Amino acid sequence: VFRVLESGDIVKKVNTIASNIEELNEHLDTLSKSENKTEFDIIAIQKYTAYNNSIKNLFSEKALRYDLTVPFARYVVMNQHNLTFPFKRYQIQPVWRADKPQKGRYREFYQCDADIIGSNSLINELDLISLIDKSFSELKVPVVLKINNRKILAGIGEIIGAPDRMIDIAIAIDKVDKIGTQGVFKELLEKGFRNDQIEKLHTVLFVKSDFNKAKTYEETVNNILIGSKNRNLVLLELFRSDSQYRNNELFQKGLEELAYLIINSSENIQIEVDFTLARGLNYYTGTIFEVKANAGTFTPSILGGGRYDDLTGIFGLKDMSGVGISFGVDRIYDVMEELNLFPHNVSKASSAKVMFLNFGEEEIKHSLKLAFELRKQDISCEIYSDQTKQIGKQFDYAEKKNIQFVISVKKEGINNGKYDLKDIREGIIQNLDIADIIKKLK
Amino acid sequence: VFRVLESGDIVKKVNTIASNIEELNEHLDTLSKSENKTEFDIIAIQKYTAYNNSIKNLFSEKALRYDLTVPFARYVVMNQHNLTFPFKRYQIQPVWRADKPQKGRYREFYQCDADIIGSNSLINELDLISLIDKSFSELKVPVVLKINNRKILAGIGEIIGAPDRMIDIAIAIDKVDKIGTQGVFKELLEKGFRNDQIEKLHTVLFVKSDFNKAKTYEETVNNILIGSKNRNLVLLELFRSDSQYRNNELFQKGLEELAYLIINSSENIQIEVDFTLARGLNYYTGTIFEVKANAGTFTPSILGGGRYDDLTGIFGLKDMSGVGISFGVDRIYDVMEELNLFPHNVSKASSAKVMFLNFGEEEIKHSLKLAFELRKQDISCEIYSDQTKQIGKQFDYAEKKNIQFVISVKKEGINNGKYDLKDIREGIIQNLDIADIIKKLK
Repeated sequence: VFRVLESGDIVKKVNTIASNIEELNEHLDTLSKSENKTEFDIIAIQKYTAYNNSIKNLFSEKALRYDLTVPFARYVVMNQHNLTFPFKRYQIQPVWRADKPQKGRYREFYQCDADIIGSNSLINELDLISLIDKSFSELKVPVVLKINNRKILAGIGEIIGAPDRMIDIAIAIDKVDKIGTQGVFKELLEKGFRNDQIEKLHTVLFVKSDFNKAKTYEETVNNILIGSKNRNLVLLELFRSDSQYRNNELFQKGLEELAYLIINSSENIQIEVDFTLARGLNYYTGTIFEVKANAGTFTPSILGGGRYDDLTGIFGLKDMSGVGISFGVDRIYDVMEELNLFPHNVSKASSAKVMFLNFGEEEIKHSLKLAFELRKQDISCEIYSDQTKQIGKQFDYAEKKNIQFVISVKKEGINNGKYDLKDIREGIIQNLDIADIIKKLK
Repeated sequence: VFRVLESGDIVKKVNTIASNIEELNEHLDTLSKSENKTEFDIIAIQKYTAYNNSIKNLFSEKALRYDLTVPFARYVVMNQHNLTFPFKRYQIQPVWRADKPQKGRYREFYQCDADIIGSNSLINELDLISLIDKSFSELKVPVVLKINNRKILAGIGEIIGAPDRMIDIAIAIDKVDKIGTQGVFKELLEKGFRNDQIEKLHTVLFVKSDFNKAKTYEETVNNILIGSKNRNLVLLELFRSDSQYRNNELFQKGLEELAYLIINSSENIQIEVDFTLARGLNYYTGTIFEVKANAGTFTPSILGGGRYDDLTGIFGLKDMSGVGISFGVDRIYDVMEELNLFPHNVSKASSAKVMFLNFGEEEIKHSLKLAFELRKQDISCEIYSDQTKQIGKQFDYAEKKNIQFVISVKKEGINNGKYDLKDIREGIIQNLDIADIIKKLK
């Protein structure tokens, strides 16, 4: 019996229970010592003590993995003296969420993480872009890779005069896909941002996702659409040259890093610069990645990642910059299913190469020996396991499982060491000894 | 926050809590309605209600997977109309136990199951023996495969006049490795078995594991040791011919099935018939398998399995006989580690084939393009990511990661399209264009 909690929830809920238990125990203690106990009090002491014990018995201090990044950070710190840095690893593991399950959002799901730690070079980001492109190309999933840089968000915070409120800004703009630009503005107003601050945010952040409404750059960015390398660069150049942003160091550094990635990636993957991309609130400090499918109606985020300058700090190892990505394996599966990208006969394709027909006890004993020989040669085979006079039924099974060859071991074969090998697809039967059968099937 | 419970425990613990909650709520209710509430009572109502709510909030009706067999049974029932029977599948997944963790016994561990369902032919058992042999041979783990048959245990129950107490017998004899023969007898006595019944059990069950003390067959079985096919058959033949056991149908059927497996397996794996092998209490009805390492000091059970005649019954599908095995992946890992069977340079072996040295910004931009070309040809490569004047440090990294080749992209290379490719192991340097580099590295 378990419950997975959002990481933020854990501390809060456990604290509530702990303080309730403490109050209770104090109360029980006072009550026990009291000389004026009523009958109710005595029952109360008994029953609540029993309840307390039965509950305690059921609890555990353990939690389920929430992601692969924190365990990775711990691994790196524990093995820092044996690893060669920059250290690169990939890892595929199940993780858990407490959210109500729905399509694309499961209680248990698989992540595939790839991280490079111990180097702050943007070459690592380029390696990951290469990995992303290669992975989705091979899976034949058409995708768009959105990129942003936390330094841009931090710079914007400074520019609008709210340098300490980057997290509030990120939380709000992260919702733009769900609640729209106006929803984001409303939330920012409620959080105490001034109109002039929001106006500035509008200009910078929504230039991409909402450019019709953008005021300052409206005319210019009308032509800026997603995906093209040149258009990405035009967009970045705009902000690089504008005096309003030119003097903010963080902002310019973010632009520069984005431009470096766009210029130096040779991949064909469609890249979209998106200043609204915030992706959670923790550890990211530089590049941010997100991948969405670019076809079909089900287009959730299927990969996320970014650079973190101090991931191992919580485990006591400072100044370890890293960059990583996480593939959402189950969502990729869902997307591929919707786009009909799976080969249609997976189970058939992985079936045996040859099947021994079953003609009876003696023949089977002989077939078992032959199967042993075939398997020694890495030729996968099955023996039809149930004795039936209906050979047609046995052929049906072979066909359903897409087994191309069948071998008939009959009495005469046991005597002369030659057996009929039938190629079901070609309809050809040959009478061969086991050495020739092996040669033919290899 | 979660807790994995032994399946038997769940019902008991949840019931205890449920009845405690019920009593509590009754008490709270009475107390609330009472007109003679003391100050203590009022506080009690407040505090216990708060406690109740905070606890309820933390609970969930979910549990973690305990094995892969029950989910498999449900899958088969749900997909029965789309599957071709006999249906064969393997599956690798993590499962959980509540036991105190220790070496070979983890809270989360991986099982690899292989099952064949929808056929009662012993050919399937033979297929699994073949799979077991092949798997451990390839891993180079020396093992002994213990086999038994539930029908033998059931027959023994009938023979000693306790046909309905097979589970008590199985529980007791399953402990023989831990508490010894005398411990098993003591437990059986405590469970109410008579001395004459235990005497008979002794004769049959411990003929293998404790043959010095065996009375009836002592002289004969002195020579019967584990592992040899002939000796296995001599042991079975003994019981087949003895009048005391000859007339029990179940017992003889069990012997016959064991003999069939021993006679018809061509594998070299060491097989040991062990009548004390019981392996848990649920679902097995025929053959029982167990594998232990046959070397080193850490020799836990690393595979278990058997035949179950009614696994899918609980999900409403009757008469589906199946047989399956489960590899304990983590324990196999532990055994392999103890026996020093892992290749020594796994991380090195999986490293890149070639590394680009880093001579500066311009050279790197050019190297990135070349890396793209190499990767298109499936040649794995890295670019040394941090700019450093110390080329020695870059070579150190390549050597630590066992990268055989390095490419030097310098200014002249950018101009003339030819680069120094150095084979670190051979100490040879060649000046080649990218096409020749690809040819050489493929």
